[in-house]
Amino acid sequence: MKLKRLFPCIRWAAEYNKNIFISDMIAAVIVTIMLIPQSLAYALLAGLPAQVGLYASILPLIAYAIFGTSKTLSVGPVAVASLMTAAAIQNIAAEQAVNPIDAAIIIAFLSGLFLVLLGIFRFGFLANFLSHPVVSGFITASGIIIALSQIKHILGIASHGDNLLELLHSLFLHINDVNLPTLVLGSVALIFLFWAKVWMKGFLIRLSVPEAAAALLVKTAPVFIIVLTTVAAFTMDLATVGLVLVGNIPAGLPKLALPDINLSLWKELLIPAMLISIIGYVESVSVGKTLAAKRKQQIDPDQELIGLGAANIASSISGGFPVTGGFSRSVVNFDAGAETPAASFYTAIGIAIATVSLTGLLAYLPKATLAATIIVAVLGLVDFAILKRAWQYSVSDFIAVAITILTTLFLGVEIGVVCGIVASVCLHLYKTSKPHIAEVGEIAGTEHFRNIKRHKVHTHPAILSLRIDESLYFANAAFLENKILEKIATRKQLKHIVLMCTAINEIDLSALEMLESINQRLKEFNISFNLSEVKGPLMDALKRTNFLNDLNGQVFLSQHAAIKTIEEDELRESQNHPDFNDFQI
Amino acid sequence: MKLKRLFPCIRWAAEYNKNIFISDMIAAVIVTIMLIPQSLAYALLAGLPAQVGLYASILPLIAYAIFGTSKTLSVGPVAVASLMTAAAIQNIAAEQAVNPIDAAIIIAFLSGLFLVLLGIFRFGFLANFLSHPVVSGFITASGIIIALSQIKHILGIASHGDNLLELLHSLFLHINDVNLPTLVLGSVALIFLFWAKVWMKGFLIRLSVPEAAAALLVKTAPVFIIVLTTVAAFTMDLATVGLVLVGNIPAGLPKLALPDINLSLWKELLIPAMLISIIGYVESVSVGKTLAAKRKQQIDPDQELIGLGAANIASSISGGFPVTGGFSRSVVNFDAGAETPAASFYTAIGIAIATVSLTGLLAYLPKATLAATIIVAVLGLVDFAILKRAWQYSVSDFIAVAITILTTLFLGVEIGVVCGIVASVCLHLYKTSKPHIAEVGEIAGTEHFRNIKRHKVHTHPAILSLRIDESLYFANAAFLENKILEKIATRKQLKHIVLMCTAINEIDLSALEMLESINQRLKEFNISFNLSEVKGPLMDALKRTNFLNDLNGQVFLSQHAAIKTIEEDELRESQNHPDFNDFQI
Repeated sequence: MKLKRLFPCIRWAAEYNKNIFISDMIAAVIVTIMLIPQSLAYALLAGLPAQVGLYASILPLIAYAIFGTSKTLSVGPVAVASLMTAAAIQNIAAEQAVNPIDAAIIIAFLSGLFLVLLGIFRFGFLANFLSHPVVSGFITASGIIIALSQIKHILGIASHGDNLLELLHSLFLHINDVNLPTLVLGSVALIFLFWAKVWMKGFLIRLSVPEAAAALLVKTAPVFIIVLTTVAAFTMDLATVGLVLVGNIPAGLPKLALPDINLSLWKELLIPAMLISIIGYVESVSVGKTLAAKRKQQIDPDQELIGLGAANIASSISGGFPVTGGFSRSVVNFDAGAETPAASFYTAIGIAIATVSLTGLLAYLPKATLAATIIVAVLGLVDFAILKRAWQYSVSDFIAVAITILTTLFLGVEIGVVCGIVASVCLHLYKTSKPHIAEVGEIAGTEHFRNIKRHKVHTHPAILSLRIDESLYFANAAFLENKILEKIATRKQLKHIVLMCTAINEIDLSALEMLESINQRLKEFNISFNLSEVKGPLMDALKRTNFLNDLNGQVFLSQHAAIKTIEEDELRESQNHPDFNDFQI
Repeated sequence: MKLKRLFPCIRWAAEYNKNIFISDMIAAVIVTIMLIPQSLAYALLAGLPAQVGLYASILPLIAYAIFGTSKTLSVGPVAVASLMTAAAIQNIAAEQAVNPIDAAIIIAFLSGLFLVLLGIFRFGFLANFLSHPVVSGFITASGIIIALSQIKHILGIASHGDNLLELLHSLFLHINDVNLPTLVLGSVALIFLFWAKVWMKGFLIRLSVPEAAAALLVKTAPVFIIVLTTVAAFTMDLATVGLVLVGNIPAGLPKLALPDINLSLWKELLIPAMLISIIGYVESVSVGKTLAAKRKQQIDPDQELIGLGAANIASSISGGFPVTGGFSRSVVNFDAGAETPAASFYTAIGIAIATVSLTGLLAYLPKATLAATIIVAVLGLVDFAILKRAWQYSVSDFIAVAITILTTLFLGVEIGVVCGIVASVCLHLYKTSKPHIAEVGEIAGTEHFRNIKRHKVHTHPAILSLRIDESLYFANAAFLENKILEKIATRKQLKHIVLMCTAINEIDLSALEMLESINQRLKEFNISFNLSEVKGPLMDALKRTNFLNDLNGQVFLSQHAAIKTIEEDELRESQNHPDFNDFQI
């Protein structure tokens, strides 16, 4: 069992057969054709030589096929992680004289190690602190930054920057250096790819190409434009008129090696590596889950940490950069019929063959073409609808998304992710620090208590029933103490308070001290302090203290029982000891 | 009204009379006698010249008397804030060549500004994120650090350090340099002060001194030992044998001046200043609250921010260092019968007179005596009982306290406070990220639903009633989705799920997406998805989305109504369409 858990491949390998092989093989061919341009382009985006993208698309796929639990996830370089890698490398290069490739290898290694450790200690829940709206906002903003960062390659100018303002400013400064041949070729590539994305499928169907084949042909559009522009660059010798080419790539498979051990550098790169891996993991798990659900399969979030961690370590030791599960590529893999992770294994072989045999041809590939590929791919990530959806549902979700988008756009990706997480945690804490308190009464004919402001309910002048809609903990203890004392101050006839604890899931030590102080105060005022509907685990905790012994009142199983008992007591008492006020009236 | 709120002094000043004046005056004399040695000692603790302590005990008291809401709080230098000031000054001095006095003045100014801003924007709730157990732990650890940091003055050696290990190591290194006259004088002072604290009152009572007078005489013990050792140092010329004295203090009142504007220095000192003011505020408000409650008075936590902020700004412009409300001094002020903040005003006049007239005598005051005063005072802060109390009540409170104590002891005060806050927030988030889920059933003869594991309840095989004991938000959405799907997977006969929402106070956008996905999944399985007891504010939010329209089930007012309706439907259906299984049985 444990072995099967650590190596999910054991399960599917046992049932592997020829039909599955054929399905996997078809998917692998299609994904390979799609992955070659993507891997080159994302290496460029990360500020690395093109071959690093290929290296990151061989061993990592095999590692994930062995350790991963998603049947159809396509692991490899992806846009957002590449952008984050670029930012991390730029920051470190500004401080220390480090070869970008070495830095990327270390980032991949640290990412892998971090993910594997999280997986071993089953800390996958940490990724939950990145809320969906925050991730959507982050990816949207990253898409814009990525697209802007690639415009320079289309214009043939040198510009740089980590955020929106820097990028726009830099583009503006260099706008007179535009290289016309690059602009023409880049624009052709861009327009063709846009056309392919939006209209090509319909166009092919009108040419009587079957729909499935048309969909597949669309996926080959990037390869088509790469071949076309490479041939154009070669035949017309466009490098001489200023077109920037990928240039000579070392042929052959990457050499395996452990990353250099340089502790000060590792320390500097640790935080970026952690951020990249968390973002990559969240993206990847969400793709994996969606696809698995479509085929009623399951993925194991904790084992996914180990799968993606292993992929990153594999990338690192084979000269690659951070990888994760990509959305569009995984969907293609899924649609093309991949049934097991063996498809990824075959894809890895395909990329390995390309690395050995095609590198010579890639020397003439224009960087503008790769930039066009990236721009068209990432604009699909931009989705401002999340802002509208969050706005309609809740202000605090909207604020979290808006903060994430703005900080990512204007301060860069690393600060953006951190601000997104911090903002959503702070907003959550802020909300729970000022909880909703409802005065409740009984709905006639039921045993059911609801807010007196929203429902027509029965109440008693001597009894105050309060429902606190939050667990009691340090952040709201003082607030609640003030609120409860305020409510008491306005009620002259008050003799009993019943705290309805349905929504109180926890009382921490600070809140317990607050309750003790309220109990003390109420005792002085001669008001009884009762609790109802206290949950089991909470009651267990309270029983370990003196609180229940000192309580100036009772604990009732239900609010109904509390009110019934207290009202009966009140009635009996008023019959035995008629109040002087009754005679004075 | 607004004016009265900003200047609480207007209220009590209007009712001021001769009797109140006499009470306030008596308290002021006693507090002045207590404050002179304290102010000198805490200046020494902060690493500042002795007169700075006096300066911090004049204007700040007047500012608080005008803006503060506690009638009896005694503002001025306190131990923990002084230790934190010392740490901040040491850190900055290590990096930049800054005069400690200038740094202290800037810290006081920034603290004051920060508190006033928090007060104006009514952000006092931020202080609630420092939980009581964390504050207790922090003060306990600080007390130990403070006591250790003063031992060098008793031994007459030069040692330094920010944390337990550094202090012990430094003491050990210099142990051979012990100055015997200093040790003798320091030990006498220390033993006398201990004796005064523990036994002097009983001793005086046995000498037939009335109890109240005995209690007051105990408070003068520090002044007594100061006079005694100063006279000894002067007459025996102990400085020549190595006793370190306070030395010449400039006579006269402090000159008023704004702090130097040095933005890079301000930036460095901002975080320490914020930490000092938050800790000072929390300590002060807790003292103020306790004393106010004893006389059935109230304090206003937001106005307290402005009062303490004004006190710190006043300290800064009169050459002082950070101040806040001190516990022991406030209790003395309270016990001595202070009725209004005018007592603090008279105390300020007393200290001003001392500053003008007594500074000449202070030149011969031995530092060892001040160190002894500090040690005896802070050992009262050390209270490890909080660890035991937290341990008995809840593991997470215990962990938070233990982390605070350990980090404060071994890494220093600033890191200690931050770790305490971060640990308690993280532990809270961790708990809410894995909430308790109970399967519930109806207690016979009631409309009340409780956990099937704890109570004898009625359930129906086709219905699963789940109560989630937590608000649904990003940090627990994925966890809950897995748990709910797990529960469903084990129940073959299941046709209906009812989510009892009594403890759900909020559903954020991430959690809403999770519920939509569960709803979709259940629809595929042909299981209805119902909610009950949804709270008003939550229902309002859900109504703004499509969730309720798409819901494959109903929303019931109560769990009882839900079960009744569904059971009746089930019964009707089984009568109309008898299940094949029924015949097979």
